Amino acid sequence: MSVSTAAADQSVCTPLPVLGRDVTVPLVTGGEVSYAALDYAASAPALQRVWDDVAAYAPYYGSVHRGAGYLSQLSTDLFENARKTVADFLGCRPADQVVFTRSTTDSLNLLARAVPAGCQVFVFETEHHASLLPWQDARVTYLDAPRTPRQAVETLERALADRDPHGPALVCVTGASNVTGELWPVRELAAAAHAHGARIVLDAAQLAPHHPVDLRELDVDWIAFSGHKLYAPFGSGVLAGRADWLQAAEPYLAGGGASRKVTRREDGGVAVEWHETAARHEAGSPNVIGAYAIASACKALTEAGWDGLVAREQHLIAKVREGLAEVPGVRVLSLFGDDAPRVGVISFVVEGWNSSHFAAALSAEYGIGVRDGLFCAHPLVRTLLGSDPQTQGECGAPEAAPGEKSLNAIRVSFGAGTPDEHVERFVNAVRELVAQGAKWQYRTEDGRCVPAV
Amino acid sequence: MSVSTAAADQSVCTPLPVLGRDVTVPLVTGGEVSYAALDYAASAPALQRVWDDVAAYAPYYGSVHRGAGYLSQLSTDLFENARKTVADFLGCRPADQVVFTRSTTDSLNLLARAVPAGCQVFVFETEHHASLLPWQDARVTYLDAPRTPRQAVETLERALADRDPHGPALVCVTGASNVTGELWPVRELAAAAHAHGARIVLDAAQLAPHHPVDLRELDVDWIAFSGHKLYAPFGSGVLAGRADWLQAAEPYLAGGGASRKVTRREDGGVAVEWHETAARHEAGSPNVIGAYAIASACKALTEAGWDGLVAREQHLIAKVREGLAEVPGVRVLSLFGDDAPRVGVISFVVEGWNSSHFAAALSAEYGIGVRDGLFCAHPLVRTLLGSDPQTQGECGAPEAAPGEKSLNAIRVSFGAGTPDEHVERFVNAVRELVAQGAKWQYRTEDGRCVPAV
Repeated sequence: MSVSTAAADQSVCTPLPVLGRDVTVPLVTGGEVSYAALDYAASAPALQRVWDDVAAYAPYYGSVHRGAGYLSQLSTDLFENARKTVADFLGCRPADQVVFTRSTTDSLNLLARAVPAGCQVFVFETEHHASLLPWQDARVTYLDAPRTPRQAVETLERALADRDPHGPALVCVTGASNVTGELWPVRELAAAAHAHGARIVLDAAQLAPHHPVDLRELDVDWIAFSGHKLYAPFGSGVLAGRADWLQAAEPYLAGGGASRKVTRREDGGVAVEWHETAARHEAGSPNVIGAYAIASACKALTEAGWDGLVAREQHLIAKVREGLAEVPGVRVLSLFGDDAPRVGVISFVVEGWNSSHFAAALSAEYGIGVRDGLFCAHPLVRTLLGSDPQTQGECGAPEAAPGEKSLNAIRVSFGAGTPDEHVERFVNAVRELVAQGAKWQYRTEDGRCVPAV
Repeated sequence: MSVSTAAADQSVCTPLPVLGRDVTVPLVTGGEVSYAALDYAASAPALQRVWDDVAAYAPYYGSVHRGAGYLSQLSTDLFENARKTVADFLGCRPADQVVFTRSTTDSLNLLARAVPAGCQVFVFETEHHASLLPWQDARVTYLDAPRTPRQAVETLERALADRDPHGPALVCVTGASNVTGELWPVRELAAAAHAHGARIVLDAAQLAPHHPVDLRELDVDWIAFSGHKLYAPFGSGVLAGRADWLQAAEPYLAGGGASRKVTRREDGGVAVEWHETAARHEAGSPNVIGAYAIASACKALTEAGWDGLVAREQHLIAKVREGLAEVPGVRVLSLFGDDAPRVGVISFVVEGWNSSHFAAALSAEYGIGVRDGLFCAHPLVRTLLGSDPQTQGECGAPEAAPGEKSLNAIRVSFGAGTPDEHVERFVNAVRELVAQGAKWQYRTEDGRCVPAV
């Protein structure tokens, strides 16, 4: 039985074409089914437009910033134009820098290495590890999980009021949780940070693919995001924002491209003049295909129109949430409650089920790809499960046997390429599994949950 | 007039198909010509086989190490199998680790962060900046340019004999110079390093695309190389070798994937258990397309057969060197002399010419892509030019006017995809430009040398 047979809302756009939309996968119950990619929060499929752009460019590939030939000049222009496209996409200020990194993780590690000496960092325990862990050399204050957006702002304001008011400070916060999908009050947190003389970096890994993000409108100092969650999975990410800390910092990587002039000193050492542009932190040959793919995705999303994309995603979110609400024993994880604005990332547990086995059954019996685990946000997931940290399974390594209390959660996530059928199939599958049990047995092998054949 | 009308040597294989082989570019003198990509040492075109493999995989793209779905499992297997393929390609020992990075620069920066406290590093001034500059936190001894391979070994032996014999030490050396293409005596240098209790890392960025590289046979501790020079330009590189220093080091990037378990401590802080596998240094979603592309290139080169590939490249090298030797005023840069074994990387200057203008003319009038500059190896190029460091042009920013003494050099480089016609056209173009001058005027604009139209 289908979750919804009502005609699609006419105001929402159709799914954007993505690679893999025609891929079929085998079922343990026999036959094949089209693959339902519902793990966008980990890695989204490439937009067809992004792939087409990359494929059209690939024969013209050449070295960036490093050659006299036509294709080198073309590739250099493509790379630097990609920088401008990303700056426009993020609403950057004229003096901001856009640094191409490999991912959000890399972007935040770069920023962590660029913060001034003695910088105080404030970060909620609810962050993804990419935002939680890079600040090792700074004095970090970890803030307890808030239960409302208002509480988040108040918690931050209290912590900032307590800080040594002199010296640099940085707040790092997600735009949308990679576990609950809930939006964080970024503008209000930015205002609080600035009121206390702190700066703020937005982890937009889960926000940028689902929602327009404007650096000036949000008044944040930096934005980080990943290509592989923005339908451009070619190994690049972005850190964009204020130039001063980046220009003052030691180069992230030492090597060619970042160095303007290198000479032997009379004492036998080596003297280096480093660039002060974004190239300072981009040593080595730039990943021009990765950067171009991100720029292509930015254009594709802008041209498709955010109003329609957001409306469509909200329509899918409603289908999933309403569907899950009707299944007995399903508990959706939430920090800010049912009414919080959110993107298409929903985590849940099912009473009496090991989450890893549930996710394995969704894959093996329905061709649905979700994720199980702690989602690289261990403290948050433990807080939401209300469980003892010592008994928690490790990330990606489910440890509980079938029938035991679930130690991990299940996450379903989707976006611009998701057709209604995928989320309908997902909700039906959850209902069937809960009502009838799995048709197959599953076991854990090498940290992976597989059908016990 | 063609440089060589003799039939191709029957023992050499035909060029491997690469992307861009059908690309034509406009000439300032009118018309179009097929592009001669002779800048392989900066970035090589993708092998057609690599592109085909990436294109076949792209619809099956999914998250690595992070999902329960079929495509996530497939992508995880693909990524981990790529690691095995690279290990085989490099002749790794069973306990060695293969870490996927973004480039050689990134690989050597990772190793620089992993060296034990107090490590002494020994590096020749002749290295690429990627090998020369990452050792900021170590005690570095820069060794003067040797003029023979034997002198290189002796220089290193003397320096190692003078070192504090206790405590860790590392030698970093290139396999093939990115300026002269000359091979370095890696096995002898490794023996010298080990005899003095030091370890050695091989920068194989310019060696691996041209020559079989076997970690055990060379007896080096680590090897670093880049995908974009190995016909796999999708943003990945490799650091392979001994696990102990890597396992003992702080994670290169802090974030998800590198962290096995993260908990809040009772004092409000955060406790992290890090992985001890290669994942320790691969935080963030892996660039599976980049890694798979490298594995595809490793397989393609192995299957094509190194004997034929090397024979073909030596045939092209002979054509270029013999051709350049006949042109008056051309001086090929060399550290080890004419008889030194080398790969297809040749740098030269032309008397009376600004190298940037010469390279611009090769592009605009002949459709040939080479590189001009100091090739991110400033001390080496200055040594070879015998010039004053203070008057040198900056990397990528030619400063001399036409007619002035050249401050930079011109580099022509090629590899497995290069047809004879490209190097024949190149030698003819050099001869014509020297004999007749350029047909056009060139000027420097925004650090780029362009036709003055």
